[in-house]
Amino acid sequence: MDKKGILIVVSGFSGAGKGTILRELLEKYDNYALSVSATTRKPRPGEEEGKAYFFKSNDEFEKMIAKDELIEYAKYVDHYYGTPRAYVEEKLKEGKDVILEIEIQGAIKVKEKFPDTLLLFITPPTIAELKRRLISRGTESMEVIEGRLLRAREEAKGMDRYDYLIMNDELDTCVEEVHRIIEGERRRSFRNLEFIENMKRELKGE
Amino acid sequence: MDKKGILIVVSGFSGAGKGTILRELLEKYDNYALSVSATTRKPRPGEEEGKAYFFKSNDEFEKMIAKDELIEYAKYVDHYYGTPRAYVEEKLKEGKDVILEIEIQGAIKVKEKFPDTLLLFITPPTIAELKRRLISRGTESMEVIEGRLLRAREEAKGMDRYDYLIMNDELDTCVEEVHRIIEGERRRSFRNLEFIENMKRELKGE
Repeated sequence: MDKKGILIVVSGFSGAGKGTILRELLEKYDNYALSVSATTRKPRPGEEEGKAYFFKSNDEFEKMIAKDELIEYAKYVDHYYGTPRAYVEEKLKEGKDVILEIEIQGAIKVKEKFPDTLLLFITPPTIAELKRRLISRGTESMEVIEGRLLRAREEAKGMDRYDYLIMNDELDTCVEEVHRIIEGERRRSFRNLEFIENMKRELKGE
Repeated sequence: MDKKGILIVVSGFSGAGKGTILRELLEKYDNYALSVSATTRKPRPGEEEGKAYFFKSNDEFEKMIAKDELIEYAKYVDHYYGTPRAYVEEKLKEGKDVILEIEIQGAIKVKEKFPDTLLLFITPPTIAELKRRLISRGTESMEVIEGRLLRAREEAKGMDRYDYLIMNDELDTCVEEVHRIIEGERRRSFRNLEFIENMKRELKGE
């Protein structure tokens, strides 16, 4: 069937375990590539250029915007964050399924530009469980946790715009489920229009 | 997440192996129920009432139509064929995924009445392979085979109205793929609106 990769957006509440799931997924299967964002914020210790982010000056970033070199971008506080188009398109052409880990506003912009984008939302089984996970990390103040829950409330408003909701109850099961859903998506009719056209042509050759 | 079963239509070219796939699927997993059609044609030797079909008189069938007791029906040559609504709804409520093995016209009618219906189309990898399979059965005349290929040409026109195209290359792989696609469909957002509403409510309780 058609060989181009699938563009995938993964979002989810902070504390839902997105990061761990994606790390496992990339380690376990070689059909995935993680998109690297561009940003104007300064690198933190240990962050490598082209791995954590592509670090850009404000001027460079605004030139990328002007040239439509970003699939989506947003400004948080004083810094730009965006998804460079070139890397994504190159990997898709190679047949890789490219994963963007971005939030809902970005997800919607990407879907507008690329309607075939697969939107996945990772959720804990319950909000009680989400709170438990945020608290048990023990690294964040109650204030930060409250902030995250407030943000979750905003994010929940967009849950129904995602194609799939995947519950992260047990890590390995969840990783496997994400992978199977993506594998299944390869069989969607709208991703196989070339195959359909070939079938029709062959049948007319009758 | 939500517990109601999924209504599934399975179609495909004659010779694609639908029957075998469904038999294996039902044997291997217990979440499926196969819908039994009603018909006005006479039972053939060995066909049991309520297993092969529900056998009805013309009068009974037309009363079922009038009472909207059929999800879809059609008349082929002189006989009615249709899908009784009661059995399907009962099984869905029990949480079973109910499979209808019907053709495209029926599939479209079902989708109109139940927009959440999952439409699956089973296809051989190529038309050459389809021909090979039809011929190697050795049970049908060239005339019948030509007729089936002509019908396939008609059916191919509707392929893109199905949600998924599943290639039957190797039986076990195909059965597994059908099962995984259905499992994945359980995670679709539109099938989990109750779960989303609960999440939102819980977050507001914050």
